[in-house]
Amino acid sequence: MQKHDKILLAHGGGGQMSSELLRRTILPRLKNRILAQLADSAKLDLVSKSVCFTTDSYVVKPLFFNGGDIGKLAVCGTLNDLAVSGAIPAALSLSLIIEEGFEIKMLEKILASAAKTAAENDCHIVTGDTKVVEKGAADGIFINTAGIGTLIPGADLSIERIAAGDKVLINGTIGDHGMTVISQREGIRFRSALRSDCASVADLTGRLLRQRAGKVKFMRDPTRGGLAAVLNEIAAGTGLGIVVNQADIPIDLKVQAAADMLGIDVLETANEGKFVAIISAQYAEDCIRTCKKHPLGKKTAIIGEIVKSSGRPAVEMKTRIGGRRIIQMPYGRQLPRIC
Amino acid sequence: MQKHDKILLAHGGGGQMSSELLRRTILPRLKNRILAQLADSAKLDLVSKSVCFTTDSYVVKPLFFNGGDIGKLAVCGTLNDLAVSGAIPAALSLSLIIEEGFEIKMLEKILASAAKTAAENDCHIVTGDTKVVEKGAADGIFINTAGIGTLIPGADLSIERIAAGDKVLINGTIGDHGMTVISQREGIRFRSALRSDCASVADLTGRLLRQRAGKVKFMRDPTRGGLAAVLNEIAAGTGLGIVVNQADIPIDLKVQAAADMLGIDVLETANEGKFVAIISAQYAEDCIRTCKKHPLGKKTAIIGEIVKSSGRPAVEMKTRIGGRRIIQMPYGRQLPRIC
Repeated sequence: MQKHDKILLAHGGGGQMSSELLRRTILPRLKNRILAQLADSAKLDLVSKSVCFTTDSYVVKPLFFNGGDIGKLAVCGTLNDLAVSGAIPAALSLSLIIEEGFEIKMLEKILASAAKTAAENDCHIVTGDTKVVEKGAADGIFINTAGIGTLIPGADLSIERIAAGDKVLINGTIGDHGMTVISQREGIRFRSALRSDCASVADLTGRLLRQRAGKVKFMRDPTRGGLAAVLNEIAAGTGLGIVVNQADIPIDLKVQAAADMLGIDVLETANEGKFVAIISAQYAEDCIRTCKKHPLGKKTAIIGEIVKSSGRPAVEMKTRIGGRRIIQMPYGRQLPRIC
Repeated sequence: MQKHDKILLAHGGGGQMSSELLRRTILPRLKNRILAQLADSAKLDLVSKSVCFTTDSYVVKPLFFNGGDIGKLAVCGTLNDLAVSGAIPAALSLSLIIEEGFEIKMLEKILASAAKTAAENDCHIVTGDTKVVEKGAADGIFINTAGIGTLIPGADLSIERIAAGDKVLINGTIGDHGMTVISQREGIRFRSALRSDCASVADLTGRLLRQRAGKVKFMRDPTRGGLAAVLNEIAAGTGLGIVVNQADIPIDLKVQAAADMLGIDVLETANEGKFVAIISAQYAEDCIRTCKKHPLGKKTAIIGEIVKSSGRPAVEMKTRIGGRRIIQMPYGRQLPRIC
């Protein structure tokens, strides 16, 4: 059969051409025993009946950015959702919607990147799907991943456990992913290239929870909407306030400079390798130590604390010059197609 | 906050507008206890550690067709993949990629339909995601569903169990979904309207497997590529041949007429409420009886049998006039965006 270099509509038709794409392009890159059975679903034997289940679709533009690509992002994003739920990732699905005419070489790169990222995180893509739509009916490629994880014994993460006095921890600098993608999309060159933080934090959160299970009360990954959205969700969900210290929030100087230049608030900018954890004050130092030992936690910091509500729930930031600024829930218009 | 009637880019930004769409439009329609927690992932307690996991994306055009819509289809398709794997569906995810400008009223209808279909099948949408892309970057709405099911005890479905002499069963007429969608898309009016078979077969396969676990050797749902693709996949996977009798294959006369008119082979046309089962000959009558008691199995028929391979694996059809025709694996070009 003829070798094609672009995706054709027939590649999505469920016949010979679909089978060919699957066997030549997809399976060799995602290779694993379960997927290779090409069953209607993957059969798995989990280690526990208590599971977490999550999904995200990825529409990032551009598809390749400094520090990652849509394949790596789609795997990391779903692993991170499992991670901050207190789970060990067990299996991933990967579903592609591809625009007719998409370069098969690009698809191969994206698949290889997704598979590599999954394998590095001791997880595999065990089931999937490919659809093709006509030219103009999608923008290159969209990827959905779903994931199953098994709950770490003793992990007890729940927004209801949060109380005044608890500390707010983040495992590193904010805004790296969002500023990298937006500056590449806009064709802006900074003297020093920005780099997305795109990574799975599952290994780090797993260590933290196995060592300090029960001490960590809640976790969430600050993706779209950034740190500002997560803090506001926590305030709204608990009815408590949050005060963060501007000076304690890790921000890369290049990211801050790029954000200032583009008029973007770093607090509202997406991250893809970060988690916010709420922990009892007495265990804060302990958790920081655990995180700092991990490559993805070198710049871990306590950035603020939970406070009693003074009227309506609110998030405030003590600025470097001693003032106070309310951090609002972002409206959402800032950065489309960031993930 | 202002009420919008069309999807805006900001609805996908992860901020206030996303939250508003979620709370006003999505949650009230998908309502269930787990989803309402709006956690990064859904926590589930499964009844077994042996699970099936599957995913599919849906890009059907038009979004609404006689007998269903993209929401119902996205739920049924994933339930069916679990069903033919021998699983009882436990939970679904639902992820939306929406084009800017999409009518919120249409979204509401689609969500209501998805939720109703899930509930009718004793399953819920427990986790999800919404992304918005610019006008022209997608075609209305694309939906991904993933699903988890728990294996029915005793169900032992595996293509390796298939042997010469086994019977090929289907639970009703073929081609209904594909011919309905294509004829609506092409704006063709037939004297009698066609109707998609879009339905979840999970209840029916569940009954069959609970009553006859072990007697059913393999199941697959003939979606894209139709019956022709499934039979060829079975032949290729077993190295055995298959002979089907044209006279025994249930086909609605209106569907056949429409297919003839459009020059489409019904055997290659998508179904969305059908499964093919391979069963030992001695249990065939027994399985038919069980199926015929179910609303989705009234027209169940044995359409052929597995035979020893005569050289290379092949699927043949004995025609009504006594001839033989090879049923090939469809090429895939026939019907884009059918599901």
